[in-house]
Amino acid sequence: MESALSASLATLLERFRAGQRTALARAISVVEDERAGFEDLLHELLGAGPRARRVGLTGPPGAGKSSILASLATAYRAAGEDVGVVAVDPTSPFSGGALLGDRIRMNDLATDPGIFIRSMATRGSLGGLATTSREVVDLMDVFGLSRILVETVGVGQTELDITAVADTVVVVLVPESGDAIQTMKAGLMEIADIFVVNKADRPGADRLMTDIRMAVHLRTGEAPREGSGHHGVDLTAATRKRADVPARQQGQDGVTPGAPAWQIPVIKTIAQRGEGSDKLLAAVDAHRAHLEESGELQARRRRRAERRIHEVVERELKRRAWSHAGVQRLVEAGLDPVSRGDATPYSVARAIVAELLGRG
Amino acid sequence: MESALSASLATLLERFRAGQRTALARAISVVEDERAGFEDLLHELLGAGPRARRVGLTGPPGAGKSSILASLATAYRAAGEDVGVVAVDPTSPFSGGALLGDRIRMNDLATDPGIFIRSMATRGSLGGLATTSREVVDLMDVFGLSRILVETVGVGQTELDITAVADTVVVVLVPESGDAIQTMKAGLMEIADIFVVNKADRPGADRLMTDIRMAVHLRTGEAPREGSGHHGVDLTAATRKRADVPARQQGQDGVTPGAPAWQIPVIKTIAQRGEGSDKLLAAVDAHRAHLEESGELQARRRRRAERRIHEVVERELKRRAWSHAGVQRLVEAGLDPVSRGDATPYSVARAIVAELLGRG
Repeated sequence: MESALSASLATLLERFRAGQRTALARAISVVEDERAGFEDLLHELLGAGPRARRVGLTGPPGAGKSSILASLATAYRAAGEDVGVVAVDPTSPFSGGALLGDRIRMNDLATDPGIFIRSMATRGSLGGLATTSREVVDLMDVFGLSRILVETVGVGQTELDITAVADTVVVVLVPESGDAIQTMKAGLMEIADIFVVNKADRPGADRLMTDIRMAVHLRTGEAPREGSGHHGVDLTAATRKRADVPARQQGQDGVTPGAPAWQIPVIKTIAQRGEGSDKLLAAVDAHRAHLEESGELQARRRRRAERRIHEVVERELKRRAWSHAGVQRLVEAGLDPVSRGDATPYSVARAIVAELLGRG
Repeated sequence: MESALSASLATLLERFRAGQRTALARAISVVEDERAGFEDLLHELLGAGPRARRVGLTGPPGAGKSSILASLATAYRAAGEDVGVVAVDPTSPFSGGALLGDRIRMNDLATDPGIFIRSMATRGSLGGLATTSREVVDLMDVFGLSRILVETVGVGQTELDITAVADTVVVVLVPESGDAIQTMKAGLMEIADIFVVNKADRPGADRLMTDIRMAVHLRTGEAPREGSGHHGVDLTAATRKRADVPARQQGQDGVTPGAPAWQIPVIKTIAQRGEGSDKLLAAVDAHRAHLEESGELQARRRRRAERRIHEVVERELKRRAWSHAGVQRLVEAGLDPVSRGDATPYSVARAIVAELLGRG
C-alpha cells in the first residue's frame, strides 16, 4: 500500500514516532472519528508490530474491575512501566462512571504522566468493542506503552470481544454476580485465562471459588489442583476455542507440543483493601511467560490478525458500497416498492450486489 | 429475482400461505438459522407487504415491560385479534427469564392458540435486534397476525434498533430507572412515541412524570400540555430524527403538511394491577391513527426499507467475500506477516477489496 498521508497526518506521524504524548492523543482521535486517511496512518504506524503486554479485564457490572485495574496500574507504574488504560465499560470510573465509594487511588492515576487513560464509547452494543477501539489499543502498543489494560463490561456475548485485543483475559466475578452456571452460560468460562473472585470477604465467596473450580474442571475434564493461591486445570482445549476463527486455523498456530499446559488460577481478592493483588500480578506475568514459551502468544496474535483483516475488509466494503453512485440509485428506486410490498429487500439487494461484484 | 426454492421450502411456503401455525414456526426457524434459501423464502413471502400494527416496548431491565406487554396482548386477544410477541430482552419472562413475582396472566397467554410467542437470542449485543430478528417480525406480519408486540431491553444504544421493527415505540420507565437526564442520554427521548411511567405507586413517580414532560419540552421547544392522561408536545422534529438514515431521505416521505402533530403522551401505569392499561391501549391506537393520517406510517416503512436493504446487502457482501477462494488465499498469506508486524491489516484488506471490487 502506497502511503499518501496528508501534510497534517505526516506531521502527526513524525510527532508520534518522536514519542510525544499529545501525538498519541491526537492519533487516537483521528482513528476514533475515522477521519480521512486514518487507515493510512494506522498502516504506517503498525509496521512496528505488537510489543505491549495486553491484559483484558471483564466481568459483570459492579464486580470491581476498575479497582483491580487500578491496583495493577499502580503496581506497574511503581515498577517504572508506561501504562495504557482503555475503559469500554460505561459504568467504569475510568469512563467517568460512578465511583461508588471506591477508595482506590484513581485520582493519583489520572494525573500520573506515565499512564495514558482513554475511555471509549461503545457503538451499538453495550460494552462491545468497536473496531476502532481495537485500533486505539494498537496505537498505544506501537507508541511504546509496555502494559495495556483494557476494561470491558462482560454481559451477553460482548465479552468475547476482549479476546480480540488482550493477550491475557482476567475474568472478575463477585459472590453477587451469580453462580458458576451463569458464568458458563455467559461464555466467560471459555475466555478466562485467570479468574478473580473479588470482594472475597462477602458471603458466598468460598462457594463461588469452589463452583468455578468445578466448572473449569467439568469443562476440561481434568482434576482441579488444590492449593493456596493457584487452582486450575489444563485449559489448552479451552484456549484453543477462544477466538471466533475456524478451528482449522487454530491447529496451525505452532503451539509447541509438549509445552506445559496453562493451569487457570482462581484468585481471591479484596481489591479495595489491596488484598490478593500480588497474586494477581504474579499470575498475569506467569500467564505471559506461558504464552511466550508455548507459542500461544504468536497463535493469539495470528488469530487477532485474521479477525482484524476481516473487520477492515468489511468496513471498506460497506464504505465502497454506500458511496457507489449506481448503488445509491438502486436503493432510491427500491424504497417505495419495498415499503409497499411490491418489491422485497432481497430482490433490491441482489441487484445491488450484482452491481458491485458482478453476478458471480 | 427468480425463485429457486427447494422442494421442502416450496412446501413450507404453501403451508405458510394456507395459514398453518406450524409453518410459521418452521419458517421462523429457517430464517433464524439462515438455512439455505432463507432469503428466497422471505422474498416470496414479503410480497404481501406489511399490514400488522407493530408496537415496540423498550426500557431498562426491571421496568415491567413484560407485564405491560402482557396486558396489551390480553386486551387484543379479548378483542379477537391474533397477536405475535417477540421478546429480545434476555430477562423477559417471555424469553424464559425470571418472573420476579409477576402475577400477570403470562401462563394463560402462553397456552392461548391465538398468540404466537417467540423469544430471540441476541447476537453480539445485549438486547440488540439481529437482522434475522427483524425478519422474524416480518414473517409474523405477512402470516397475518394483526398485532405484533416486540420487547427489547433498552440499554446503551441498542434500543434504537426497536425503530427498525416497530411503528409505535413505547418507552417504559420506573422511578428506580433513573432521572430524565439519563433517559435523554440513553437516546430514549428520541425514539419514544409514548412514555409509560410504570410502578407509579412508588416514590419518585410524580417527579419522573414531571421530569419527562420537561425533557420532552426542552427537546422540542413546545409547552407541555397538562391533563389527566395525556401530556405531551410536538415531536414531529424528534420522530423525523428517529431512524439512522440520512435526513435528506426523511424529507421526502410525504408527511402531510399541516397534519396535526403528535403529542407524546406520558402515561402512569401500575401494570401488575392493570392500572393505566386502558389509557395505554387508547394511546397506541391514537398513535396509529396519527401515523396513518399524517403519512408518517409510510415514511417510517420507507426508512425501514432503506435500512433493511442495507442490512441484506452487507450480509450478502460478507458471505460473498469470505467464501471467495482468492480472498481466502490473501487472508492466509497475510496472517503471519500481520501478526509479526511485517504487514498490516490495512495493506492486506486493500488487496482483498481490490480482488473483490476491482481498483475503483
